[in-house]
Amino acid sequence: MTGATKVEVTATDGDARTTVVTTARGSYPTPAFMPVGTRGAVKHLTSADLEDLGSDFILCNTYHLMLRPGADVVAELGGLHGFLDWKGHILTDSGGYQVFSLEPKVDDDGAQFRSTYDGSLHRLTPELAVAVQEQLGADIQMVLDVCAPLPSSPQVLRLALERTAAWAARAKAAHRRGASRREGEHLQALFGIVQGGTDEAMRTESAQRTVEIGFDGYGVGGLSVGESREEMLPALAAAMAELPTDVPRYFMGLGDPVGLVEAVNLGIDMFDCVLPSRHARHGTLLTSEGRLNLKNARFARDPEPPDPGCLCSTCARWSRGYLRHLLQVNEPTAGHLLTVHNMAWTLDLVRRIQGAIAAGTFASLRREVLGVWE
Amino acid sequence: MTGATKVEVTATDGDARTTVVTTARGSYPTPAFMPVGTRGAVKHLTSADLEDLGSDFILCNTYHLMLRPGADVVAELGGLHGFLDWKGHILTDSGGYQVFSLEPKVDDDGAQFRSTYDGSLHRLTPELAVAVQEQLGADIQMVLDVCAPLPSSPQVLRLALERTAAWAARAKAAHRRGASRREGEHLQALFGIVQGGTDEAMRTESAQRTVEIGFDGYGVGGLSVGESREEMLPALAAAMAELPTDVPRYFMGLGDPVGLVEAVNLGIDMFDCVLPSRHARHGTLLTSEGRLNLKNARFARDPEPPDPGCLCSTCARWSRGYLRHLLQVNEPTAGHLLTVHNMAWTLDLVRRIQGAIAAGTFASLRREVLGVWE
Repeated sequence: MTGATKVEVTATDGDARTTVVTTARGSYPTPAFMPVGTRGAVKHLTSADLEDLGSDFILCNTYHLMLRPGADVVAELGGLHGFLDWKGHILTDSGGYQVFSLEPKVDDDGAQFRSTYDGSLHRLTPELAVAVQEQLGADIQMVLDVCAPLPSSPQVLRLALERTAAWAARAKAAHRRGASRREGEHLQALFGIVQGGTDEAMRTESAQRTVEIGFDGYGVGGLSVGESREEMLPALAAAMAELPTDVPRYFMGLGDPVGLVEAVNLGIDMFDCVLPSRHARHGTLLTSEGRLNLKNARFARDPEPPDPGCLCSTCARWSRGYLRHLLQVNEPTAGHLLTVHNMAWTLDLVRRIQGAIAAGTFASLRREVLGVWE
Repeated sequence: MTGATKVEVTATDGDARTTVVTTARGSYPTPAFMPVGTRGAVKHLTSADLEDLGSDFILCNTYHLMLRPGADVVAELGGLHGFLDWKGHILTDSGGYQVFSLEPKVDDDGAQFRSTYDGSLHRLTPELAVAVQEQLGADIQMVLDVCAPLPSSPQVLRLALERTAAWAARAKAAHRRGASRREGEHLQALFGIVQGGTDEAMRTESAQRTVEIGFDGYGVGGLSVGESREEMLPALAAAMAELPTDVPRYFMGLGDPVGLVEAVNLGIDMFDCVLPSRHARHGTLLTSEGRLNLKNARFARDPEPPDPGCLCSTCARWSRGYLRHLLQVNEPTAGHLLTVHNMAWTLDLVRRIQGAIAAGTFASLRREVLGVWE
C-alpha cells in the first residue's frame, strides 16, 4: 500500500457495506458504479452530462488511449482530467483485458499485440502499463494482469495466475519509482488484480499473493465473462475472503442489476460496466419492471416516460413513443436520451443499495432486484 | 392572410430589417435562423439543448414525419410540441422539396412517390399537405409547392410556377376549411412559396401570383440548390420586390454565413439550413476565422477551444485536441459537442446581424463576413 486510498466504513449489513473512500482527488461513497468512457467519453455523454447524473467516476481505457490519441497527447492536453474536463475521479484499467482479447504473443516479460486501429505492433509490460497510466494521470491505476478466457484449462489458469502475480510485483515497483520521481505531485493509487478463473482454490491463492504484495485496492478480474452466476459467485467469494477490508474491492466489468446486488452482498465496493450504454444504443431500457425493448411496436403510441418512477432528465420530458420513433429512424439524439436514462437508472440503483445497507434492509432490496431481473 | 402572424418592424438598415413576429404561439425576433430537426430532432440535440442555445424555433419535415412515425401518432402524442416537448415555435415544411427529389409522378392534382423507408406508395396533394400539417400541429405551415431542380428548362420552370400557384390557392382553401372546423383552437399560420428558378421575370410573376392569393408569410423556395450566388441573388431580389413588408419573408434552405448576410441584405427575415449540423458531423467547425476541418492533424495537440471568441458550452470546456480525438475514434459525443458549437455560432451570427441592423452598421458586418467566408 502507498496510502493513496483511505476507507471509512459507514455501515454494514451482512457482508454488504457502505464506505467513504478518500483519495488524493477527494472522497466518494461506495458501493460506486463507474460509467465506462473507453476512449475518453461515455458513448453519447459529455463530462457535463456525467456531472448532471451525479457520477463520482469515469473509467477510461489505457489500451485504447495509448493507441489513440496517445498518452503523450493526453498528457500534453492536461492529462485525462484536463482532456475530458472532468473534476471527479478517474480510474484507468491497464489494458490487460483488451490486449488478451486480441490473442497477443505473451511471454514472461509482457505482451505484444497489434493495434485494432491500424494493425501496428505494440508492447505492454507491467512497467509500461504503469508509465502510460502515469501519463494519463488517472486517480486510480490498475496493474497489467493476464486475463484468461472462460472456460480455460487448469494449466492456462495457473499460468495466468503466476504471471499476474509476478507482473503485479513489477507494477508495484515501477509505480513506487514513478511516485518518488514525481514527489509532491498528485499521488495515484494502484490497484492489484485477482485472477484464477472459476477455480475457488486458485482465486484464494491469487488473492493471497496479490495482498501479500500490497495495493491501494483490489480488482477482481476475469469474471463476468460469460460463465454462469453459479460459477461466478463462489469464485468471487473465495477472493473476497482474502481481501483486506481497509481498502476498496472492485469487481471489474460487472453492472447488471442482479450482478450488482450479488457482488455487493459479498462485500464488493466498486463496479464498472458498459451495459447501461450498450443497452441504450440497442434500444433497451432499464426500468423498475425490468428490461424494455423500445423497438417493440407496442411502444409506438406509448405516452409514458421510460420509467415512470425515474427522476432523470429523459423521463422528465419525453415519452417512450418519441424515443422509439427516434430509434426507428436512427436519430443520434435517441442514443443520448436512452443513455442518460439507463445511466441514471443504474446510478440510482446503486444509491438505493447504499441506502438499504445503511437502513439494514439490503436483503429485501436484493430480493426485489432478483425478483424483477432473474 | 388569416391574421395568424403580425410583424412589427423594429429597425431597418437599407433593405435589411429587424422585426418582432407574433403568432398564436408567442413572439420571436427576426432575422431568425431555424435549426432543422427533420425527423423530430436536430441531429445530436434535444429540445433541452435548443433551449440552452436560445433557439426560438425548430423546423420539422412533413414528408418524413408523415411516413415515420405517421402524423396520427404525432397527433396522439400531443402534436409536435408535445412529442418533442418543445415550447418554442415550430415550422413544418410541406414535403415538396423532399418529394420532388424522389422523381415522383406529378399531375395537376398532386404527386405520387415512394417512401424512402420501405418503398411503399404515397400521395401528397396541396390539401393533404395541409391536413397532415394540421395533425402535426406546427405554428407555421408551408404550402405544397413544385420545386424544379436547377438548372431547368423554361418549360419546366413554367410548369412548376403554374402548379405551385394553383396548389397554393387550393392549400389556402383547405387551410381555411380546417381553421373553421377547429374554431377556437390554436391558429396555424400558412406561408405561400415563391418559385421560378433563377429566372427573374418568373420570380416576379410567381411572387405576384402568390401574394394575390394572400398568406401569413412567404417562403422563397427552389434556390440555394447548387446555382451560383450571381444567379441566386437577382432571382431573390426579384421575388423580394413583390413581397409585402407586413409579413415574414423566409429563404428556405439557406444557412451559410455569406448566404445569411446576403439574404438579410435583401430583406429576408427567416432561414433554415442543415449546414451547422452537417458540418458538425463531418468534423467541420464554423469559427470567426472561417471553416476549420478538425480532422486535420495540426489540431491533434491544440489546447484552444473551437472558437476562442465563442461563448457556447462546448467552447467553455473542451479543446480542439479533445474534440478531434473523439471524432477520429468515432465517438458519438463528438457529434453532439460539435453540433452545439456550430449551432451556437450560427445563432450568434444571426444575433450579431440583428444588433448591426439596429445599430446601423449592417454594411460593415456584411463586409466582415464576406471577407472571412468568400
